[in-house]
Amino acid sequence: MPPIRTLGEHALVERLRQRVGPPPASVLIGIGDDAAVLEPDRGTVQVLTTDGLVEDVHFTRAWTRPAAIGAKALAVNLSDLAAMGATPRASLLSLALPDAFDCAEFDELVDGYVSLAERSGATLVGGNLTRSPGPLMIDVTAVGAVARRRLLRRDTARVGDEIFVTGVLGAAAAGLEMLRSGIARMGVDDAAAACLARYESPEARTRCGVIVGRSRAASAAIDLSDGLADAVHRIAESAGAGVVLDAEQIPVAEGARAWASGRGIDPVMFAVAGGEDYELAFAVSPRRRGRFLGATRRCRNLQVTRIGRLVADRGAWLSTSGRLEPLPAGFVHF
Amino acid sequence: MPPIRTLGEHALVERLRQRVGPPPASVLIGIGDDAAVLEPDRGTVQVLTTDGLVEDVHFTRAWTRPAAIGAKALAVNLSDLAAMGATPRASLLSLALPDAFDCAEFDELVDGYVSLAERSGATLVGGNLTRSPGPLMIDVTAVGAVARRRLLRRDTARVGDEIFVTGVLGAAAAGLEMLRSGIARMGVDDAAAACLARYESPEARTRCGVIVGRSRAASAAIDLSDGLADAVHRIAESAGAGVVLDAEQIPVAEGARAWASGRGIDPVMFAVAGGEDYELAFAVSPRRRGRFLGATRRCRNLQVTRIGRLVADRGAWLSTSGRLEPLPAGFVHF
Repeated sequence: MPPIRTLGEHALVERLRQRVGPPPASVLIGIGDDAAVLEPDRGTVQVLTTDGLVEDVHFTRAWTRPAAIGAKALAVNLSDLAAMGATPRASLLSLALPDAFDCAEFDELVDGYVSLAERSGATLVGGNLTRSPGPLMIDVTAVGAVARRRLLRRDTARVGDEIFVTGVLGAAAAGLEMLRSGIARMGVDDAAAACLARYESPEARTRCGVIVGRSRAASAAIDLSDGLADAVHRIAESAGAGVVLDAEQIPVAEGARAWASGRGIDPVMFAVAGGEDYELAFAVSPRRRGRFLGATRRCRNLQVTRIGRLVADRGAWLSTSGRLEPLPAGFVHF
Repeated sequence: MPPIRTLGEHALVERLRQRVGPPPASVLIGIGDDAAVLEPDRGTVQVLTTDGLVEDVHFTRAWTRPAAIGAKALAVNLSDLAAMGATPRASLLSLALPDAFDCAEFDELVDGYVSLAERSGATLVGGNLTRSPGPLMIDVTAVGAVARRRLLRRDTARVGDEIFVTGVLGAAAAGLEMLRSGIARMGVDDAAAACLARYESPEARTRCGVIVGRSRAASAAIDLSDGLADAVHRIAESAGAGVVLDAEQIPVAEGARAWASGRGIDPVMFAVAGGEDYELAFAVSPRRRGRFLGATRRCRNLQVTRIGRLVADRGAWLSTSGRLEPLPAGFVHF
């Protein structure tokens, strides 16, 4: 396949447009004008987020196929919308492409992106293509909608709230370590394969965020892009509170437990510090616990675990059989 | 000043947040949560665009100060909103920063951005910061609002429409060539200084786009990011029409005329092919010409010139004393 630079921007935009299905009626103008135009959903507020992936910072092309890179660039944004309780409505894709990137890679990346965009409702409505004299960079802006009173914020937790988390933790961090160690994909067991899949193809908890937002049972929510430790630090800080997590309750992914244990690392510490699981954490007042758990039961077999609580004394702690130790700092992309 | 990588992402976000003033009431959640939340303007549709600048593709740090780079990254997006007739409401800023970028440069870039964001109404409500193992990259998403029936599209022109353009052309292209030639800024005359300023600090025609949109006098609009030739090609193509521009009417910037003439280049060809002027082109039915010109008189001393018309025969032509020659292709960033 020819390198994309032989095509030029207009031909590439046309190539991209052909890979995108017809938009829903709420998209008044999609790809091709100076800007995209959306009809806002009645009675909702507009939720906007942007996040990106940079080659050799967030992914390595030698390890990960373009389709997975494209989908992940959108998924990390969908996770931010989920943490607000917002339903995805549209997205914009900005690509800076190295000269050697070829058309097959471009098509694969776009297909991975568009496939998730169509499944999630985050219709691709616009974007930008440019060359990169350095790494491949993918910047995505996602747009969502939510009724104002169903919005989930991160700064509205209170002392006494319990902390809940979706899914299992540490899988993405273990998957990344496996790739770094040069693991042979064909030989891994199911638990390790789940870690690789979580790192490369994270799934945003859109349905759960929306359902919990609608239930109005959570006092705050945040996604775990930078890991659980970082997330609970932030929820606690903006509540002027501290947080204590119960080590025995942390749902560590099976493959992450095996990976960490095999290397003499405490699996719980590994799981709480590891980033990129893209699960959600919620703060919930104990008197709303029943309503919250009732709502989460409708989140399609998604495990939800109570792992700790906000306390009056500042600081962030992990409690193991009553012994407290400081929570590690979050995962650092920078 | 220390390089930004010694600070980490959280500290940088905090540094950025301190440089942004309090947002207007329509911004329900600004910087600091998982996503930004806006209250949509009643009776409007939502206009979204994304565009970016990549070091050594769109700018060179040796030539241009960080404040100008930050402002230009937003301005190119405001130009897209202007071409839709939309009023800027919010923006998101995504930065991929090289390791050697230092805090003073970061502050300057952010200040340049924020200053224009506040002047234009495109309040900075969110973004993303990451490292770049290569060039500095700045991706911006701008959000605007416009009443649905005042929206300007690019694909709604008709054969017989006249083409108008704002401002003067070729200045940005001449400014770029001057910088490439290693011109000494201190020695240039006013006309050349205007070219440098247009290249480095383009001004989006926001007020003009909004006023023309409100007048409902234009049948189509587009901005000149890739030059006039490219813009009129696109307007004509999506109308299934051709276009003839009148060479004598093209408003060539004085500095561009001098630059091109001095190098044996036809100034009109230079001006119509050159990109990055960020002026607007409009297609206007002759029976709405009066209304259109009446509206543009309210665009704060902005020159608006009739330069050609859409014709039934496909193709794009420049007419010089009745002799037709093909319009050059547009400016290519890719």
